[in-house]
Amino acid sequence: MLSFYLIPLDIEMSHQPSILPLVEQWEAFVKAKAGTTVDDFAKWILLKEKPESIPTKNTTPFYDPLLQEAQLQGDYPAIPTSQGLAIHIVIRLFKAIRFYFKPTLQKHGFKSLEEFLFLATLSWKNNISKKTLCRTNMTDIPTGIDIIKRLIQQGLVGEQENPEDKREKLLLATDLGKQKLFQLFSDPEGSADVMADMNTEERLIFMRMIDRLNNFHTKVYHQQIDDR
Amino acid sequence: MLSFYLIPLDIEMSHQPSILPLVEQWEAFVKAKAGTTVDDFAKWILLKEKPESIPTKNTTPFYDPLLQEAQLQGDYPAIPTSQGLAIHIVIRLFKAIRFYFKPTLQKHGFKSLEEFLFLATLSWKNNISKKTLCRTNMTDIPTGIDIIKRLIQQGLVGEQENPEDKREKLLLATDLGKQKLFQLFSDPEGSADVMADMNTEERLIFMRMIDRLNNFHTKVYHQQIDDR
Repeated sequence: MLSFYLIPLDIEMSHQPSILPLVEQWEAFVKAKAGTTVDDFAKWILLKEKPESIPTKNTTPFYDPLLQEAQLQGDYPAIPTSQGLAIHIVIRLFKAIRFYFKPTLQKHGFKSLEEFLFLATLSWKNNISKKTLCRTNMTDIPTGIDIIKRLIQQGLVGEQENPEDKREKLLLATDLGKQKLFQLFSDPEGSADVMADMNTEERLIFMRMIDRLNNFHTKVYHQQIDDR
Repeated sequence: MLSFYLIPLDIEMSHQPSILPLVEQWEAFVKAKAGTTVDDFAKWILLKEKPESIPTKNTTPFYDPLLQEAQLQGDYPAIPTSQGLAIHIVIRLFKAIRFYFKPTLQKHGFKSLEEFLFLATLSWKNNISKKTLCRTNMTDIPTGIDIIKRLIQQGLVGEQENPEDKREKLLLATDLGKQKLFQLFSDPEGSADVMADMNTEERLIFMRMIDRLNNFHTKVYHQQIDDR
């Protein structure tokens, strides 16, 4: 805690800001061998643990200083916490993706995004059970079973006996299913870019952030799903 | 383009990296009055336009250098582009959110996340038409009309004549609807944090990034929806 007071990182200077804190941090960066470029340095500065980090669990639910500091530009409901607002925005990003893909999915005969995602999963994880396919997609079993039924009816997914447990059937994408996926992936109209106008550096930071969040939540999902 | 060759930002040094590029950038930062702290500087470095930005439209579909550089940790399909993989991961984050909220939504009598989102929208945007409510939620009109019908049947949403156009009815959350929302928002089990184990700085960066993406896609959505 003391270091927070000693290093004058946040002192507002009336004239030009001092370069000394920068040089101090640069020396620590060089010592840590965290990279060689100014970009590496900037990432290192932003990603290392901060002594002034606010534990999120303890923020007051009706006043979140992070929301003030973030100064968001969007038209948002008066959600009092940054956690709630982040959820609101991620849902909107999902809906934008769903919106962009709808014409392409319809054109290639898919009834829903989920139907496409289930078939796509079988193109890289073949021979899995219905339950595993649902869980890989983070989809409820009853909803997932309906989707799988439709995919089988359309001849896009097939079933075969599990050699290790003859009571269980394993799913696989049929040649027709693979062909349909290939057609969709090759459709130039099908491409969308959720990262929009971000430049390469921003894309890198964003990809790493969502990768880390996805790994976190995938782990929690698999821990909690068995207890439901 | 020439500046990219002249400023040796990316030169790999065999010994200690030179502090000169850092000082050059710091002087530009001070000149730009973009802040005073090392943190401000780091954010400024990462968010400003890079001369070496790769135009995303021109990346080869089957080899995306950004994916190599990102070195993602998750278990992902062999999606050849960072754009496709970002979409895949955002869909997963949405599904994690849906998973976390499901028990709370069920406990408070909501049939789906959409039903809750529609009612919640009316708590901050009252007296809007069915079409506006659907579009505010980025939801298809037929799906949206079904959700609104269910909310009206449950007495959570009411209709009243539009004083400016008597052929149109406007929607509002009823007292019962507001009460139900309040109960859900006060439920301590209902909270989830999509930003997981991020520290405050990372949360700030993430919130600003998704805010910017949401604004971009919301604009595109409203431009494109009328042509569909």
